[in-house]
Amino acid sequence: MDRAPNEIEALTTQLARLPGLGPRSARRMVLHLIQRPDQSLRPLLAALERVAQTAQSCACCGNISTLPVCEICTDPRRATGEVCVVEDVADLWAMERGAVFRGRYHVLGGTLSALDAVGPEELRIPELVARVRDEGLREVILALPATVDGQTTAHYIADALGTVDVQITALAQGVPLGGELDFLDDGTISAALRARRAF
Amino acid sequence: MDRAPNEIEALTTQLARLPGLGPRSARRMVLHLIQRPDQSLRPLLAALERVAQTAQSCACCGNISTLPVCEICTDPRRATGEVCVVEDVADLWAMERGAVFRGRYHVLGGTLSALDAVGPEELRIPELVARVRDEGLREVILALPATVDGQTTAHYIADALGTVDVQITALAQGVPLGGELDFLDDGTISAALRARRAF
Repeated sequence: MDRAPNEIEALTTQLARLPGLGPRSARRMVLHLIQRPDQSLRPLLAALERVAQTAQSCACCGNISTLPVCEICTDPRRATGEVCVVEDVADLWAMERGAVFRGRYHVLGGTLSALDAVGPEELRIPELVARVRDEGLREVILALPATVDGQTTAHYIADALGTVDVQITALAQGVPLGGELDFLDDGTISAALRARRAF
Repeated sequence: MDRAPNEIEALTTQLARLPGLGPRSARRMVLHLIQRPDQSLRPLLAALERVAQTAQSCACCGNISTLPVCEICTDPRRATGEVCVVEDVADLWAMERGAVFRGRYHVLGGTLSALDAVGPEELRIPELVARVRDEGLREVILALPATVDGQTTAHYIADALGTVDVQITALAQGVPLGGELDFLDDGTISAALRARRAF
């Protein structure tokens, strides 16, 4: 990129900062875009512009949406009384791809972390407690990561909801679909064994 | 992305079409962009806009530039009488990263291919012949890929320049830097042996 023109270099730099991209793949993308102005560059520009103008956090669940309150929160069919607590929007999208859960969400925006000084107030936990109380929710499903911080956060939420009349559940732990025991870590195997069920 | 809002889904689709990206990495990029509107989304949008407005093909060499004639062609220090023939702009950029060649370029826009019905007229070969004649160039360096189509194209260009008084050279073939013989293909080893030099 030694002698590449400045505007093109600036775009490459911007793209190279995105997750999963480096200078090499960014250069390839820039060439691809410039060589296809009408099929690729302009449609991408228009799509990016619309997102920049409209994307916002859902005031209710914290999902990313183009509306003040997201499509999931406003969908009356999803008022099942179940709310699924996730760490971030990526996890919400992953749950939606599973297409099994038909309730609503609550995005924490992270997990409790003493090291990173993330406390309950940073995490929309007070909002969750208020929501459970105000909406009279039936079940809170904790879909938090199976990490130390994730499980600490799950316990903290269970405590915070201690005085509220609501069922608290968590995602099952066990052998993932297609998982071969030989390639699984010991922790997963122990958890699957402890949670064994009648067959 | 089942329930993701339409504008966000449209952006993901656009990004997923770029080389090296799939739906998964595109989603990660979209989330990254939306969650950092001022550090990431808006700068990328501005950079993309400037490139969309200014990027064009250099009228002389075929490089991509933001000027009608690119920085390399207008740089008087690079009027060395040497022109390096490359397949595409990505190869030109790769040569520039090498930072050894100080002459000018000629981008063919592909290689001759009977299968894909790419003939000399599609490849800016007539423009190359005219350039060599009109600019009184001293040397044409063929930096074409070491593939069948690349070498066919090189031979075709040498023939087309047969009546012009110009030196025609090609990149050396041999063992790449850091290359271990054990991991090299037989063709490269044969080529390196045939082109062996006094040590």
